Amino acid sequence: MTHHFNGHINLLPVEEQQLRLGHLRAAMATARVDAILVSDIANIYYLTGRVFSGYVYVTAEEMPVVYFVKRPSGLEGDGVVYIRKPEQIAESLELAIPASIGLELDLLPFSMASRLAKVFGRDAASIANASPVLRAVRAIKTPLQQRMMRDSAIQQDYVYRQVPKLYREGMTDIELQIEIERALRRRGCLGQFRISGDSMELYMANILVGENADSPTPYDFAMGGAGLDPSLPVGACGEIIREGNSVMVDANGNFTGYMTDMTRTFTLGEIAPLAVKAHETSIEICRAVAAAARPGAEARHLYSLAESMAAEAGLAEYFMGHRQKAGFVGHGLGIEINELPVIAPRSRDIIAPGNTFALEPKFVIPGTGAVGIENTYIVGEDATEAITTTPQQLISLS
Amino acid sequence: MTHHFNGHINLLPVEEQQLRLGHLRAAMATARVDAILVSDIANIYYLTGRVFSGYVYVTAEEMPVVYFVKRPSGLEGDGVVYIRKPEQIAESLELAIPASIGLELDLLPFSMASRLAKVFGRDAASIANASPVLRAVRAIKTPLQQRMMRDSAIQQDYVYRQVPKLYREGMTDIELQIEIERALRRRGCLGQFRISGDSMELYMANILVGENADSPTPYDFAMGGAGLDPSLPVGACGEIIREGNSVMVDANGNFTGYMTDMTRTFTLGEIAPLAVKAHETSIEICRAVAAAARPGAEARHLYSLAESMAAEAGLAEYFMGHRQKAGFVGHGLGIEINELPVIAPRSRDIIAPGNTFALEPKFVIPGTGAVGIENTYIVGEDATEAITTTPQQLISLS
Repeated sequence: MTHHFNGHINLLPVEEQQLRLGHLRAAMATARVDAILVSDIANIYYLTGRVFSGYVYVTAEEMPVVYFVKRPSGLEGDGVVYIRKPEQIAESLELAIPASIGLELDLLPFSMASRLAKVFGRDAASIANASPVLRAVRAIKTPLQQRMMRDSAIQQDYVYRQVPKLYREGMTDIELQIEIERALRRRGCLGQFRISGDSMELYMANILVGENADSPTPYDFAMGGAGLDPSLPVGACGEIIREGNSVMVDANGNFTGYMTDMTRTFTLGEIAPLAVKAHETSIEICRAVAAAARPGAEARHLYSLAESMAAEAGLAEYFMGHRQKAGFVGHGLGIEINELPVIAPRSRDIIAPGNTFALEPKFVIPGTGAVGIENTYIVGEDATEAITTTPQQLISLS
Repeated sequence: MTHHFNGHINLLPVEEQQLRLGHLRAAMATARVDAILVSDIANIYYLTGRVFSGYVYVTAEEMPVVYFVKRPSGLEGDGVVYIRKPEQIAESLELAIPASIGLELDLLPFSMASRLAKVFGRDAASIANASPVLRAVRAIKTPLQQRMMRDSAIQQDYVYRQVPKLYREGMTDIELQIEIERALRRRGCLGQFRISGDSMELYMANILVGENADSPTPYDFAMGGAGLDPSLPVGACGEIIREGNSVMVDANGNFTGYMTDMTRTFTLGEIAPLAVKAHETSIEICRAVAAAARPGAEARHLYSLAESMAAEAGLAEYFMGHRQKAGFVGHGLGIEINELPVIAPRSRDIIAPGNTFALEPKFVIPGTGAVGIENTYIVGEDATEAITTTPQQLISLS
């Protein structure tokens, strides 16, 4: 299917955009923010269904949205104003500048936040932080967003089922990864693992084989890996896949602009009984946490449940890493891989209908490698459903 | 070759790190910044040869560097201090806090910059901006950095020469791109197109075929493309490659942590004479601009030279895009794709020995597509040398 440039500023169905704007305006009213100038690519995509370089100006009161566009050229629709630099926003905005202006202060570089504050005649210290407001709104997915995640999951499941066919004897971890990435791309994966903020970097897929799973990384991902080079120290390291290794595949499910996240563990030959037990424990933890993740549940309690199940199985030492441990067992996702809720010891998030999150109770077993699974879930009114459905058991490559 | 975790905090040869620190300290002295707390991944990689989550504390006076590390675990060496949160920096730093502290204010999110300022007992408005200092230092590559770029170029050249073999009749642009990406990865490409800042996103390769080259994008890249989806609107769009199309391949050369950038144009069948002429003009512009890019040359004059050559050839209308034009013809590169110098109309950069930049005088010819080349250059004392050496002429796919 060929994708062509569409010049409408809003690519969402009109009612869908109104729904999202309604959620945002309600959250702005609660936070007492009168207007927000949105600049982050993921937030612009949320509000318009497209990515452009510029700003979306939204008021808490129901006034027309203004789109300040730098690039691309050729966008049309109500509220589109082309600018070359942000200083032109003030002259274009023929509105009284409201009392409380919000900017994405958790994302905007200091220099740019200060510059934008001046546009509104403020210093940066008097600007409200719109980041928590937008994060909270984006944590609740609309039915359309949920459908786009389900569509991604279907394609991701398709590719995961091909993995054993992609393996050849004597392959290295990165060689297998390259074939999985190619299969993902051929199925339509956009190849973008979108992460909020600038502190983590990752390619399309993360394949961890054997001892490499115990290499600590700088990034706050669930699992490690030395990577191929010190400039990108995560994931596959070029080691041959050997008998007795586990092969953990955590590969990108971004087929629609909305991502799913799934991990399955493959094996070459027999793996250690402790590793088999840990894998089964991971499946049990997913089942139990998903059952407990009803609307109103506290995310930190879900973490405790996972942790205590690992401890009861005698696997505390290996839970969420061995030499280095991740500080969470699940994370919200959708447009980006690190959305709310966070399922971690000190999380204050409360599970709500429309949340979508990935659960990844994983273990690193010395001598074998990483085992465990990851699924993506949608929280409904009554139950939480896994939308990644590839069989969860250990899958043999040989 | 297998890459294993190495726990030394500094992976650079000792003299190399001293050389880089010397350049940074000299620039800090000129800018009257007494100390810098570095947090950006690319800057940390520049100073240590590795990526970690945390901070590098460098003083203008020659005092030992302090490395505040959050992740990975297991790093060792003089000056390593593990922290969980930045507030621990103050207690660890048993130094008089200097008069002028610099932070990367062009990159650090406002919230984090304010938090770090407090660590030093300041408000953010009294912090010096270390971003221009670090950008200027990184614009001059050491001999080791130049060698790493040459090594990337050799591998990138190897893959570009395979492109005609990867083409199959009836392929779409994205299908060809997937095969090129696979070939790059199999040759050792790290698959990371590192970009400073948060405003541009790109995958490993950008393949522009036919009319899709004229689709405007939100990103400030030289060329466009509708992309596969509105969530990532750049590059290949899924269109079949047809007779009379140009096929522009701009694929990632990051094999060493240091990137080269190269574009070559392929053709299917005969392309329009105007497109052939534009391609030849691109080669001539590269030759002329590289010859003029001697130490002391003004980057904006190099841009004018390129622009006037395009105009003299009667190609102004197609130069650097047609429906939407890029605002530059060249850019510094190395660890990231958008370093200094910038070769653009209002650039204030002066070419200096050790600069490395890509030149990409491209044209979009309606009915044919994008044509032109891109090379990566190293500026020497006497001459500027292209390190990407794949033949520059139009290359037939059929």
